[in-house]
Amino acid sequence: MTVTAAQGFRAAGVAAGLKSTGAPDVALVVNDGPSSAAAAVFTSNRCRANPVLWSAEAIKTGSARAVVLNSGGANCYTGAEGFQLTHATAELVGELLSGPGGGSGPRAENQVGAIDVQVCSTGLIGLLNDRDDLLAGVRAAHAELSEDGGAAAAAAIMTTDTVPKQSVAEGTDAAGRAFTVGGMAKGAGMLAPALATMLVVVTTDADVDAATLDAALRRATRVTFDRLDSDGCQSTNDTVLLMASGASGATPSVDELAEHLTTVCHDLALQLLADAEGADHEISIEVRGAASEDDAVEVARSVARSNLFKAAVFGKDPNWGRVLASVGTTSATFDPADLDVALNGVWVCRDSGPGEPATSVSLEDRAVTVTIDLKSGPETATVWTNDLTHAYVHENSAYSS
Amino acid sequence: MTVTAAQGFRAAGVAAGLKSTGAPDVALVVNDGPSSAAAAVFTSNRCRANPVLWSAEAIKTGSARAVVLNSGGANCYTGAEGFQLTHATAELVGELLSGPGGGSGPRAENQVGAIDVQVCSTGLIGLLNDRDDLLAGVRAAHAELSEDGGAAAAAAIMTTDTVPKQSVAEGTDAAGRAFTVGGMAKGAGMLAPALATMLVVVTTDADVDAATLDAALRRATRVTFDRLDSDGCQSTNDTVLLMASGASGATPSVDELAEHLTTVCHDLALQLLADAEGADHEISIEVRGAASEDDAVEVARSVARSNLFKAAVFGKDPNWGRVLASVGTTSATFDPADLDVALNGVWVCRDSGPGEPATSVSLEDRAVTVTIDLKSGPETATVWTNDLTHAYVHENSAYSS
Repeated sequence: MTVTAAQGFRAAGVAAGLKSTGAPDVALVVNDGPSSAAAAVFTSNRCRANPVLWSAEAIKTGSARAVVLNSGGANCYTGAEGFQLTHATAELVGELLSGPGGGSGPRAENQVGAIDVQVCSTGLIGLLNDRDDLLAGVRAAHAELSEDGGAAAAAAIMTTDTVPKQSVAEGTDAAGRAFTVGGMAKGAGMLAPALATMLVVVTTDADVDAATLDAALRRATRVTFDRLDSDGCQSTNDTVLLMASGASGATPSVDELAEHLTTVCHDLALQLLADAEGADHEISIEVRGAASEDDAVEVARSVARSNLFKAAVFGKDPNWGRVLASVGTTSATFDPADLDVALNGVWVCRDSGPGEPATSVSLEDRAVTVTIDLKSGPETATVWTNDLTHAYVHENSAYSS
Repeated sequence: MTVTAAQGFRAAGVAAGLKSTGAPDVALVVNDGPSSAAAAVFTSNRCRANPVLWSAEAIKTGSARAVVLNSGGANCYTGAEGFQLTHATAELVGELLSGPGGGSGPRAENQVGAIDVQVCSTGLIGLLNDRDDLLAGVRAAHAELSEDGGAAAAAAIMTTDTVPKQSVAEGTDAAGRAFTVGGMAKGAGMLAPALATMLVVVTTDADVDAATLDAALRRATRVTFDRLDSDGCQSTNDTVLLMASGASGATPSVDELAEHLTTVCHDLALQLLADAEGADHEISIEVRGAASEDDAVEVARSVARSNLFKAAVFGKDPNWGRVLASVGTTSATFDPADLDVALNGVWVCRDSGPGEPATSVSLEDRAVTVTIDLKSGPETATVWTNDLTHAYVHENSAYSS
């Protein structure tokens, strides 16, 4: 149960031959309504892939009837032909959902246009997917659509992921009506600020308008996916799409929806972190005592991007000096002579000098917590990253262009 | 011939036991005048080491009679005791140069105070050097001072460097009088923006005032050391010190001095790049067609910091998509759909899409050139970096805190 956990959604995942391995590579998620409200956030990279160029415009309708996703090729930097393929894919999905017998559910007879279809791609950059294979895959996925198809869809969007990522949360609105939020995600590298090589589809059967969805989605991603910074590299294809069917009849407020959406996004983000390419450790960097939340995020992110610190964690070396050296590169408010740093709860640095013996810190477990106290205010933030390992270098030097 | 290539300088390098290997670890460079004009630039890291805290204040006199450098411990994040040791070191050097028989040259009889002595340290962070060993080393270095001591000094400042770095250039002023600029450098990791774990001492026998030295030094470092970005990590101890003895009698203009100073700094910077920890490739990232020099530097630096691109170069994979993905994270002026990228002169990306076949690019040689045309103006800039290798991860996970 995942994107099909909420009422009103069908999904499928099929193998279309885009991946040389023959693994599933085309996924389709359809919202059967009655509502088709939707919202999305995209990579902030200015050099964006064709599917993002399309979907970012199409989502401005505040509506999406379906999302079609492929792994294998990212359709990024593939020029005009690549954009045409993205559009043709959306057009085909619209056609299939509009055609006689092509759909089911309350809106099966409606006409669905390309503009109602979001498109996501992931995989190799500069590679144009085979048009015939992709379109045949879309037809096959449509034929397999099912209310139990969530898991198949989650599997079909994987690239270097070793496991599919799914999450579900249940909520109730003020009137006590239950609603469900369910999601799937892929991404195992280039997890970076303001999104990653990460595709996320979240569905809900709550009955809320697009503005509410958008507000709740931005609130949730700001403290989850936006704070995942695996290797500092920002992808060209990142998309987080939220679709609401309204099928539950529940009408949660922004707060109520955002709470459960954040739960699902947080869960998916930590699953992405745990499956990041070649990582040995999941590192949680918590900054406290910050003058502002922005300061806390800036400081945490600077540590998350220190190759030296990340290599030290790989080597199980409690090298707090490299934490301070990163903090010092930021413009946050703090006194450079009065910083405290804890590794796994041991305050190895006090007042910017040695504290408890670093030898008392064990970095054997995968989970590592870095706590930095700026002693400059009440704000806090956490950024998640991974260590820098031989396997990371191997995967990213071997993964072909 | 290095820091002692210019007239008026003596130097020495000795083993004081700060390094567990027994290798030389204390260096002393003395300016015998007649002038003692000096200028320096320091790391922009806000969490700075004790020697930087001292030297940045002391250089405000515009004068330096000597610089004492140690490797082994960086005296960084070592608290009040660390600062006291830095000051005691400067004080001892002043005393030795003031004492009867302690000096030679035209100013041997002058009183030299701690304020006239610059101090640099490099090595492990959080480690306080042994006071007795360090001060004994300073005495030993003073006893060995010689006009041929440049090479010994260059060797004594090495940490993970595999070779000493030295460079000399010769110039003439408008009146045809010759002057010499000579330098030494150390640093093999944490080579980063606005300086690196890098100590550089440059001497000249030109007769120029401190303001001229400062202007020429900033002009030279801005286009050399500031554009070296090996691993994106910014050190806590970086110092580039320039001392002028005036012994040649030549009085070059800022332009004349800056020209030769830039030659020496450029040469030393490329020597640092070539010896960077664990690197297999030296990567030169040239941005052209930029609307401003700042844009060019921002774009080049973003590519220099892409772990994904740097791992691809290690794997000899001409992955131009990762170049575009980095360019897209900047705020420079360009059209995301109209970028060209060449790898080793082959234009593999044209108009943000595939150009010449990437298979025609060979990345077998250590030297790799990335050229990015922003097609938005006349400005250019080059940033140098290294690839991301297994050896980098190994050295930086094994190098103890």
